[in-house]
Amino acid sequence: MNSGGEAKSLIVDLCRQFYTLGWVSGTGGGISIKENGKVYMAPSGVQKERLHIEDIFVLDEQGRILEMPQAEKKLKLSACAPLFLKAYELRGAGAVIHSHSIYAVLASLISEQEEFRISHMEMIKGIRGMGYHDTLVVPIIKNTAYEGDLTTSLEQAMLKYKSTFAVLVERHGVYVWGKDWKEAKTHAECYDYLFQASIELRKLGVSSNSFTCCIANNHT
Amino acid sequence: MNSGGEAKSLIVDLCRQFYTLGWVSGTGGGISIKENGKVYMAPSGVQKERLHIEDIFVLDEQGRILEMPQAEKKLKLSACAPLFLKAYELRGAGAVIHSHSIYAVLASLISEQEEFRISHMEMIKGIRGMGYHDTLVVPIIKNTAYEGDLTTSLEQAMLKYKSTFAVLVERHGVYVWGKDWKEAKTHAECYDYLFQASIELRKLGVSSNSFTCCIANNHT
Amino acid sequence: MNSGGEAKSLIVDLCRQFYTLGWVSGTGGGISIKENGKVYMAPSGVQKERLHIEDIFVLDEQGRILEMPQAEKKLKLSACAPLFLKAYELRGAGAVIHSHSIYAVLASLISEQEEFRISHMEMIKGIRGMGYHDTLVVPIIKNTAYEGDLTTSLEQAMLKYKSTFAVLVERHGVYVWGKDWKEAKTHAECYDYLFQASIELRKLGVSSNSFTCCIANNHT
Amino acid sequence: MNSGGEAKSLIVDLCRQFYTLGWVSGTGGGISIKENGKVYMAPSGVQKERLHIEDIFVLDEQGRILEMPQAEKKLKLSACAPLFLKAYELRGAGAVIHSHSIYAVLASLISEQEEFRISHMEMIKGIRGMGYHDTLVVPIIKNTAYEGDLTTSLEQAMLKYKSTFAVLVERHGVYVWGKDWKEAKTHAECYDYLFQASIELRKLGVSSNSFTCCIANNHT
Repeated sequence: MNSGGEAKSLIVDLCRQFYTLGWVSGTGGGISIKENGKVYMAPSGVQKERLHIEDIFVLDEQGRILEMPQAEKKLKLSACAPLFLKAYELRGAGAVIHSHSIYAVLASLISEQEEFRISHMEMIKGIRGMGYHDTLVVPIIKNTAYEGDLTTSLEQAMLKYKSTFAVLVERHGVYVWGKDWKEAKTHAECYDYLFQASIELRKLGVSSNSFTCCIANNHT
Repeated sequence: MNSGGEAKSLIVDLCRQFYTLGWVSGTGGGISIKENGKVYMAPSGVQKERLHIEDIFVLDEQGRILEMPQAEKKLKLSACAPLFLKAYELRGAGAVIHSHSIYAVLASLISEQEEFRISHMEMIKGIRGMGYHDTLVVPIIKNTAYEGDLTTSLEQAMLKYKSTFAVLVERHGVYVWGKDWKEAKTHAECYDYLFQASIELRKLGVSSNSFTCCIANNHT
Repeated sequence: MNSGGEAKSLIVDLCRQFYTLGWVSGTGGGISIKENGKVYMAPSGVQKERLHIEDIFVLDEQGRILEMPQAEKKLKLSACAPLFLKAYELRGAGAVIHSHSIYAVLASLISEQEEFRISHMEMIKGIRGMGYHDTLVVPIIKNTAYEGDLTTSLEQAMLKYKSTFAVLVERHGVYVWGKDWKEAKTHAECYDYLFQASIELRKLGVSSNSFTCCIANNHT
Repeated sequence: MNSGGEAKSLIVDLCRQFYTLGWVSGTGGGISIKENGKVYMAPSGVQKERLHIEDIFVLDEQGRILEMPQAEKKLKLSACAPLFLKAYELRGAGAVIHSHSIYAVLASLISEQEEFRISHMEMIKGIRGMGYHDTLVVPIIKNTAYEGDLTTSLEQAMLKYKSTFAVLVERHGVYVWGKDWKEAKTHAECYDYLFQASIELRKLGVSSNSFTCCIANNHT
């Protein structure tokens, strides 16, 4: 039985695209898609721009493996699996992207509290439910030695920040989700853009946190 | 009836190209082309690097929909439509590009007045009517909560700045037009380059506003 | 008669590659190749990533047009033609690249004299005749309102700086040549890399001009 | 006899990919793969994004040439050959990548001692044997006028730093290896990412050396 051809093919295609965006270099990062109650994800430690459809794992919603790559390939389930599953369980996600984008890592380090905040940027409107005048808040959790050990703090952040679709992991990257792969990808692109904008504004000495405090922005 | 195949195909192709340039990530931005009195544009909120020819809307010059994607696709007209139409109506444009390039956003924030200004850059010559010694001026309008609400201020900027082919929207992006898609694209690339150059010069502590004020440029 | 298919095809291919490198955006920049006494170059003001083989002009070494695109295409000879020809005449070049790379423009503005200088960088060895310990010197000429007006100062720089394979044009870009298209391209990539390295080192507060003056480089 | 088709084809493919990553511009850099006791590598001074399978040299483990490109191509063995062979001999490598990435060059110049150091970054886990809390140390050796003259100091660094999979060459680039081409590429991507992160953090005024010293990182 080899089901979910479309979801598998999408994962292969999107991983290649994410590689060119710098989100999944060094075998890090990836994407999981949920379709008809089945969860699809790439294996651990593989080159994301060179994935094959037959490498994709299929799990049920409790994380039990339904299909896996041929044993001779010696592929292991991604350590991100419990984290992906949390977004499905707690937030009704249809897809989850884990990115190691350098902008996410830098954004996790220039934020003064345990939150990344930005307001008054058009791209904020790309996040479901957010308007231009709203302040986008992304919780930042501490990184751990093993990816699986992030599960508790990721869960806590998901429960505490009910309107976020992303959790930054300090010095590591970001988890982003959406109701389906299109929304998850749109969210991931918008968050990444906002992280980058925040970083570039800081290099230029312009604050990005709010409209009124912008040094270089004295329009009347 | 399925007309304007060439314009539709161009929009699909150019959107893919603009995605790689970072102008239309997160479903933002896009391009509209006018051909034989018909106006072509991509729908709202779709992934611009994955557009299909059959997703393109066709409007008349008054903005009435002549053709739209199949109802089951649930695609909506872009909120940029009234803004694109203003460039056709007021400036005789043949194509309009809306970019969310991060350089446009940063350029809107490092300018001290409600104008982005740059002079003495070769790429200024890529803008119709401009010479190397001219000062390129791009008006900056304030962003609004809804894209349609930009229409009035965009119209005012178009009427006030008669030689501009671009209007920056603060913390949002830029609208750029030309007599046809080739000129609109050339303009968009030149403006984007000039925004980037201005930002990089600022990071390096070199002024870009005029020839004589350049700290690091004491050639005799 | 339609000769030089290989040179024409190479120009089309290389222009597409240079577009992705950011050297020829906004229709600026390009490449000319000389083969069997004939000079090939792209027309003026066309999108370099969308060139067609039949758009290429063929000139003799004196700059007289031998072949040109069909009249209905209304294509004009590039304003770079006299500049390309100088490199063939004075420096025995087999190919000339004109790049608007932002790194070239920035390099022309951070140099304190009318020369860009860098030493002790491995990529200097990519320039014919240069070693790691040599100081690479690239003359910088002032830009002019019309491209053709650069001819005299470009000629002077070529005659004065006998070991350079590049001339920077302030606030404009760079002309780079080599004995054939491969060497011209290798040179162009090495110069561009060195411009970028110099700019990045300046942002980091590290001098690139010589080995001994590097603040952050106190290896013993 | 024309053996090792797969290794040759991989080198051609990976060199094209490394070109888009900026690791092998200007004919610099490259990759060598060892398979069944044979060593494969690209020739000297060729454009790495335009390699052909028939251009690849095949050597034995002592560096004697077993197969070379047709004489009329006038291709020479890469000057990196003795350096690649050291990684095979001393470190049991299955593949070696030599990158001229600008991030490697900048990383070699912002380090205060003869070592690049970074800790508490998720991507460190991409290096075999390293954990998130470990400090990654990459030795930096001085550059020499001729690539072959690096052999002794590269050998010393390989013997002294037994857990490193990379040696930075000051103002030049980096040598990275792994047990096979997949691990070498994963390592190379992780090191490059960490070099870039370190450089960007420095631009932002945030220390990357250790967790506790981060100015902007006062999470409690």
